Amino acid sequence: MTSFEQRIKVSEIFGPTIQGEGVVIGRPTVFVRTGGCDYRCVWCDSLHAVDNDYRQNWKPMHAREILDQVKSLTGNKPIMITLSGGNPAIQPFEELLALGKVEGFTFAMETQGSVCKPWFGDLDVLVLSPKPPSSEMVFDARQLAACVKAGETAGNTVLKFVVFDDLDLEFAQEVAASHPHLPIYLQPGNHTPPPAEDENAQIDLEGINQRMLWLIDKVNQTHWYTATVLPQLHVMLWGNQRGV
Amino acid sequence: MTSFEQRIKVSEIFGPTIQGEGVVIGRPTVFVRTGGCDYRCVWCDSLHAVDNDYRQNWKPMHAREILDQVKSLTGNKPIMITLSGGNPAIQPFEELLALGKVEGFTFAMETQGSVCKPWFGDLDVLVLSPKPPSSEMVFDARQLAACVKAGETAGNTVLKFVVFDDLDLEFAQEVAASHPHLPIYLQPGNHTPPPAEDENAQIDLEGINQRMLWLIDKVNQTHWYTATVLPQLHVMLWGNQRGV
Repeated sequence: MTSFEQRIKVSEIFGPTIQGEGVVIGRPTVFVRTGGCDYRCVWCDSLHAVDNDYRQNWKPMHAREILDQVKSLTGNKPIMITLSGGNPAIQPFEELLALGKVEGFTFAMETQGSVCKPWFGDLDVLVLSPKPPSSEMVFDARQLAACVKAGETAGNTVLKFVVFDDLDLEFAQEVAASHPHLPIYLQPGNHTPPPAEDENAQIDLEGINQRMLWLIDKVNQTHWYTATVLPQLHVMLWGNQRGV
Repeated sequence: MTSFEQRIKVSEIFGPTIQGEGVVIGRPTVFVRTGGCDYRCVWCDSLHAVDNDYRQNWKPMHAREILDQVKSLTGNKPIMITLSGGNPAIQPFEELLALGKVEGFTFAMETQGSVCKPWFGDLDVLVLSPKPPSSEMVFDARQLAACVKAGETAGNTVLKFVVFDDLDLEFAQEVAASHPHLPIYLQPGNHTPPPAEDENAQIDLEGINQRMLWLIDKVNQTHWYTATVLPQLHVMLWGNQRGV
């Protein structure tokens, strides 16, 4: 592999802030958001890291460069680094994981489970977030199973589902049933995602809260007590604002 | 011990809802809130379960009665039961834990760490929440250490701190340093707690959010990256409303 191929396409690096979602909600973290995605969910809230029209903003970076930039943000103190996207699974992260671990950093990644890589097993937290019907993407159960297997040696693997409606919830229940050993996180969708060109787009927080209450009710009505229901905390705190 | 002494003083049983705080945030749960407390924090948000003026509303119940009531709320499905208060540590919970576990229920309890009991070790989640200076209560480090020891066989023991100001944050850092093996959760305080007689009191959500942002900044400025910062999610969703 040439040096060029080993570079990671980075859309943005920001923090320290807190993780707003899922199993590591509230944990201090620096985000490394990569550019490029094999999906194009209709309600994508990170189009600036997905849509090829914005690829001129994605900077190819070496692992060492990325780690140095994170360290400049944390005063050289180790922190949990969140690998996000786009789909970070399409990037070559082996070297960053190896370099970071030596210096005490931990790594959490969220991916839709459409692409799997051997280095999933080196992550501390692997969040697999299969996209539900409302995304208008096609779910591949075999790829998801391969991702679960690739992550067997990760510190912690969980499933996370964005839920907009009843069909999405049914989807989550079906996929969860195929992976009974994995913890489940449910999250209401943001039906007012920001356009890629607008960093501070208006957001319907009241509507998002209503979806959260609906989701809590649904989970309790169906006695799905092993699922955890969490909002996008960063959206509650900062709306659609980027870089926080 | 007589049958009367073994009864648990119950202020309210409600749910299923989700846990709004700390390590089990977002988890479906039924709350068993007990009446009576050895503390009287100035910003207490559960005075109806603390102030002796309301003791006529605290019903002495047997463990079996409590479990039956929880089951009637969950359609007999096992769920995580949250033992809250008041200070639940002053109640006789041995029997409820034993009965519930047989039927698949799990138990999380939050207490200030001022009273310890052997049955702490039977809990699935033990949240020790020492009250900071702003509470105007006196902290007893030896009692807290005894609680940690009593909970050694619990599934998971964590420290949680309510933080109103810089002094509270310093307190949290000092206590955390004495228990380096315990995960740390920080939570901004609600400076507009409901009076005991008002179930739907006004609340300054904007002010609470500002405290959350302040706390996130503080944690990141001091590089306290091992702490987790979480709001009271139920307050963000339901304000001061009771029974949700």
